[in-house]
Amino acid sequence: MEAIRKSAREKMKGYCRVCPVCNGKACAGEVPGMGGLGTGSAFHANLEALDSVRFNMKLVHGVKAPTTDTELLGLSLAMPLLAAPIGGVSFNMGGGDVSEGAYIDAIVAGCKEKGLIGCTGDGVPEVIHASGNDAIKKAGGHGIPFIKPWEEKEFFDKLEKAEATGATVFGVDIDAAGLVTLAKMGRPVTPMTVSDLEKVMKATSMKFILKGVMTVHDALCAKEAGAEAIVVSNHGGRVLDSTPGTAEVLPEIAEAVGAEMTVLVDGGIRSGGDILKMLALGAHGVMIGRPFAIAAVGGLQQGVETYIETLRTQLIQAMVLTGTDDVNRVESGILR
Amino acid sequence: MEAIRKSAREKMKGYCRVCPVCNGKACAGEVPGMGGLGTGSAFHANLEALDSVRFNMKLVHGVKAPTTDTELLGLSLAMPLLAAPIGGVSFNMGGGDVSEGAYIDAIVAGCKEKGLIGCTGDGVPEVIHASGNDAIKKAGGHGIPFIKPWEEKEFFDKLEKAEATGATVFGVDIDAAGLVTLAKMGRPVTPMTVSDLEKVMKATSMKFILKGVMTVHDALCAKEAGAEAIVVSNHGGRVLDSTPGTAEVLPEIAEAVGAEMTVLVDGGIRSGGDILKMLALGAHGVMIGRPFAIAAVGGLQQGVETYIETLRTQLIQAMVLTGTDDVNRVESGILR
Amino acid sequence: MEAIRKSAREKMKGYCRVCPVCNGKACAGEVPGMGGLGTGSAFHANLEALDSVRFNMKLVHGVKAPTTDTELLGLSLAMPLLAAPIGGVSFNMGGGDVSEGAYIDAIVAGCKEKGLIGCTGDGVPEVIHASGNDAIKKAGGHGIPFIKPWEEKEFFDKLEKAEATGATVFGVDIDAAGLVTLAKMGRPVTPMTVSDLEKVMKATSMKFILKGVMTVHDALCAKEAGAEAIVVSNHGGRVLDSTPGTAEVLPEIAEAVGAEMTVLVDGGIRSGGDILKMLALGAHGVMIGRPFAIAAVGGLQQGVETYIETLRTQLIQAMVLTGTDDVNRVESGILR
Amino acid sequence: MEAIRKSAREKMKGYCRVCPVCNGKACAGEVPGMGGLGTGSAFHANLEALDSVRFNMKLVHGVKAPTTDTELLGLSLAMPLLAAPIGGVSFNMGGGDVSEGAYIDAIVAGCKEKGLIGCTGDGVPEVIHASGNDAIKKAGGHGIPFIKPWEEKEFFDKLEKAEATGATVFGVDIDAAGLVTLAKMGRPVTPMTVSDLEKVMKATSMKFILKGVMTVHDALCAKEAGAEAIVVSNHGGRVLDSTPGTAEVLPEIAEAVGAEMTVLVDGGIRSGGDILKMLALGAHGVMIGRPFAIAAVGGLQQGVETYIETLRTQLIQAMVLTGTDDVNRVESGILR
Repeated sequence: MEAIRKSAREKMKGYCRVCPVCNGKACAGEVPGMGGLGTGSAFHANLEALDSVRFNMKLVHGVKAPTTDTELLGLSLAMPLLAAPIGGVSFNMGGGDVSEGAYIDAIVAGCKEKGLIGCTGDGVPEVIHASGNDAIKKAGGHGIPFIKPWEEKEFFDKLEKAEATGATVFGVDIDAAGLVTLAKMGRPVTPMTVSDLEKVMKATSMKFILKGVMTVHDALCAKEAGAEAIVVSNHGGRVLDSTPGTAEVLPEIAEAVGAEMTVLVDGGIRSGGDILKMLALGAHGVMIGRPFAIAAVGGLQQGVETYIETLRTQLIQAMVLTGTDDVNRVESGILR
Repeated sequence: MEAIRKSAREKMKGYCRVCPVCNGKACAGEVPGMGGLGTGSAFHANLEALDSVRFNMKLVHGVKAPTTDTELLGLSLAMPLLAAPIGGVSFNMGGGDVSEGAYIDAIVAGCKEKGLIGCTGDGVPEVIHASGNDAIKKAGGHGIPFIKPWEEKEFFDKLEKAEATGATVFGVDIDAAGLVTLAKMGRPVTPMTVSDLEKVMKATSMKFILKGVMTVHDALCAKEAGAEAIVVSNHGGRVLDSTPGTAEVLPEIAEAVGAEMTVLVDGGIRSGGDILKMLALGAHGVMIGRPFAIAAVGGLQQGVETYIETLRTQLIQAMVLTGTDDVNRVESGILR
Repeated sequence: MEAIRKSAREKMKGYCRVCPVCNGKACAGEVPGMGGLGTGSAFHANLEALDSVRFNMKLVHGVKAPTTDTELLGLSLAMPLLAAPIGGVSFNMGGGDVSEGAYIDAIVAGCKEKGLIGCTGDGVPEVIHASGNDAIKKAGGHGIPFIKPWEEKEFFDKLEKAEATGATVFGVDIDAAGLVTLAKMGRPVTPMTVSDLEKVMKATSMKFILKGVMTVHDALCAKEAGAEAIVVSNHGGRVLDSTPGTAEVLPEIAEAVGAEMTVLVDGGIRSGGDILKMLALGAHGVMIGRPFAIAAVGGLQQGVETYIETLRTQLIQAMVLTGTDDVNRVESGILR
Repeated sequence: MEAIRKSAREKMKGYCRVCPVCNGKACAGEVPGMGGLGTGSAFHANLEALDSVRFNMKLVHGVKAPTTDTELLGLSLAMPLLAAPIGGVSFNMGGGDVSEGAYIDAIVAGCKEKGLIGCTGDGVPEVIHASGNDAIKKAGGHGIPFIKPWEEKEFFDKLEKAEATGATVFGVDIDAAGLVTLAKMGRPVTPMTVSDLEKVMKATSMKFILKGVMTVHDALCAKEAGAEAIVVSNHGGRVLDSTPGTAEVLPEIAEAVGAEMTVLVDGGIRSGGDILKMLALGAHGVMIGRPFAIAAVGGLQQGVETYIETLRTQLIQAMVLTGTDDVNRVESGILR
């Protein structure tokens, strides 16, 4: 892992410092770049919210080889983990000699190889979405394309292209409606009403994930509209300064939507222990963003796979040390 | 904005570091200068109080183009925002080759050009108040002169001069009664009783703003005396160490005076998101101080206008991301 | 003040850094020296406890020239302020060319000149107590000698010498029973029972101050024994790591002993505002330690007098800005 | 002590910085090494939990020479203090020219000389456990061998060897089931059930200590299985990131198991005051880890003895300043 991170540190110079702990402090305000918006407080809040969650360490029990397999969105996964949709290698990551295509291929193929699934991003220029779609096609449809909440025509054109990849699930990162980078490029993205969401779902047979939910209100709207899943997310703190951390709002949202909706979450997840915390707080699965981008830029597919293995080891270790034998039955009592 | 800040950093050298976040830490104790008094805790408390206020990010709704127009103090404004009264370029800001007159002209004209209104300061030497009055005259009376709470004669002389500018509103920054800088120059400023305030209002037809209110007590006194508006303010932390931040006391004060009095607030507001927070906490409008001074010293009228545009973009963005369609109807529920 | 502090910084090199805010961080563990014991947490807690106390700034009132005169321990004082007993210039302060005698003369004479009273310290070597007694004699008995809680004979010998100075009040810093510096020199100091305290009071006609009270228990014992006054103090954090700050325990102690006992307090008081805070928390008067030592080493009697004037200006300013007209009637409502 | 620490700083270079306060910040993530796992939060939490515990300083009483003698696990000890089991000089401590044997001899012999008892560690390579057993044999059985929770055969082989040292007490650090260092070496360690614990106890006549208890659940399991003692411990934060500090969970665990079980605790104890805090929170005795390792590497047996003397002086001082006359009767009321 250290070699991959060292390589990433060189290639991302000027865009990402690949800090010992990726917490949004050094890169505060760097949008475009890898930072959080403004003071970076929303990015950092994700880390703080997770840090404030602590484990009840438990060793007198019989759990020695816990299982991490799960079923999410109709997919069999080796861990309840997805690579979050991030694009824009050239202006967000630097990336050295790594092209948008090479980057997203590494994410999608690395995840597939390890029994997970990768999400692909969207944005300006077009190469972001196009590369994502190509990567998913190459993986036989094993990937989740995300589309930003563009004005009508652009949105439905992209939806059609996404469906053509063979993907069975797609997502909209609705919180991108606040992305400075896109507004500056003259490509407006906007909030959506429940009826906007329904129209989107009618237009495709793919399952729908709404990403960017930070309130019970938006979660219940997504459920009312018929979404398959939500992602509790503040877009890595890149759209609105001063939001809470996702780990703080997750429990109330998970409780509000109930068991029949799939609840995913991202934001500040860095280790296998963090994954376990999010599951204990009510999520069915998690997304990890920046660390996957760093692994892909630093080591391409091999980097992605190595990072996944690290997470798996940490997750199993945390499960053993809390007496948790199955990721599908994580008790809230493992948290203090 | 970066060019303006860079220019300001050079011109204000030794007086203001134009920090990434203007929070009173580096300049603690620098009065005169741009800092807070003593340990700087009252300046910093303003930032901390705002930081502790967080947004409920909300995207499932139909707000795409919110309005920021408002009516305050009988004035039509493009945003609920005033440039706070700050004077003393030479001893507070350094300012390089920028004269007191050039500085305050930039504030007043820049605000007018962008549909806002600027306040002008008072103090020793006389050039501060005189330049402010001149700037307002040039702007056809579109400015708000502030007068410090001097002993009787000096106060009423200055009041007469302020009225002669054509201004329809004036203010007294009563908290200046604690300004070390003035006391050292042998020009006493003092607290005022309700009857002192009434006498002031009888002497003019201009509307009256009392600035420097940090308690329900003082707010109710201002209301009893018949003031049009109050500014919840600790004078940027420059008069008394160890006061709370204004965002902390604003809600209780706004509730106490009720809807019929105009409640303004300053203190640590740096972005459009901060403006929205203050509105959600009960203010009808806000004042911003140091960042306007930096913009004016760094880029004169152009600097002021650019800063206003930045704030407008941020304010609209924060409104969209919280589902707020009108600055005159900001719900407290947008805050977590 | 800056010149005095600069001179002190040179003379105290290696013992005290004369930091911008004297808070025990840089000198943590430096005992002997000017620091707090161990991690320095008890020293720092004094500052933190005071920092957490905040003022309700109030300007609509008629207080323009508040009075600071008071009567304490049968003495008329220009402010409710005493210089705390500190000795040991050579091993605690460095002090350059300043002798123990010159130092304590500066404290006692400077305080007397400004209408206050200085306390003198005790310890090993004998020159500390002897110099203190001399200084008080020169001031016509206007000083308060402190004696450490030595074993019987040494204590009563010193008490006799203290009485011979003409002083009308003396004190015992009972918390010195934890002083590492003395234990290392083979001169044991010990806790005292109520009957020990009674025996001390019977042996002299001077009024008695018990210094080092941090609990209601010890305060009530002092009252039971017949002490005139207590000083809420953790010995500047120099005897026991991990005590609370004095401003935290002061209110409960002041309430427990009631109005008929004089309650003094020291610990982290740096400004006139801090003095006002302690009065609002229930103290009748305060002691300031390290800053007086720094002023005396840096500027001798002139340094002490200048520091007192600075404090007086700050105290009056804080009184005006909170609407307090008399140090003998400070309302707890001035604190938020 | 300073000379010993200076020597340790040189010998442990690259492994331990011998910081002014040993708190896990500088060495975060250094496992192997002396740090805490991951972000180091669990190591640091131990310090924070202790820091948040504060003393009621009390001086009006008759306690002048408190006693620190106690009886623990059938052993007469001069203080309720054990050296915690730590091994692996070469890969955890650097250690310069200090061999595993020389190190553990220093711990065991130094403790015995001062009336305490040292624990010995276990791990890979075999020299760790073997050296520990040798040291205990040389000390006539006066030491406590710890065994990690290995798979069956390895465990019982080591138990037999431990018993052969003449020791009357042994322990299992069950939390080692999370040790990355061992997993990487292909030597699995696992959680244990109550029946696993019972089997262990049946196989030996030595008294049994279960180390690594952080919940009431595990404590009651240990009691049910018949263990003589537990050690409340998060393994110095080296096995699971994000656990609470031991001082935080100690009171609830001590209350749950009741007076008839011996409750020990480690984690962040650095001074005699910390020992007293843990006793006041419900422990019968404490273990100290890293500081003993530093003392042993820096000064061998002499270093260990000097450190013990320092702790004793601090403990007695803290007892005097809180009015505590006996370590076997520490009142919770000495804490604020």
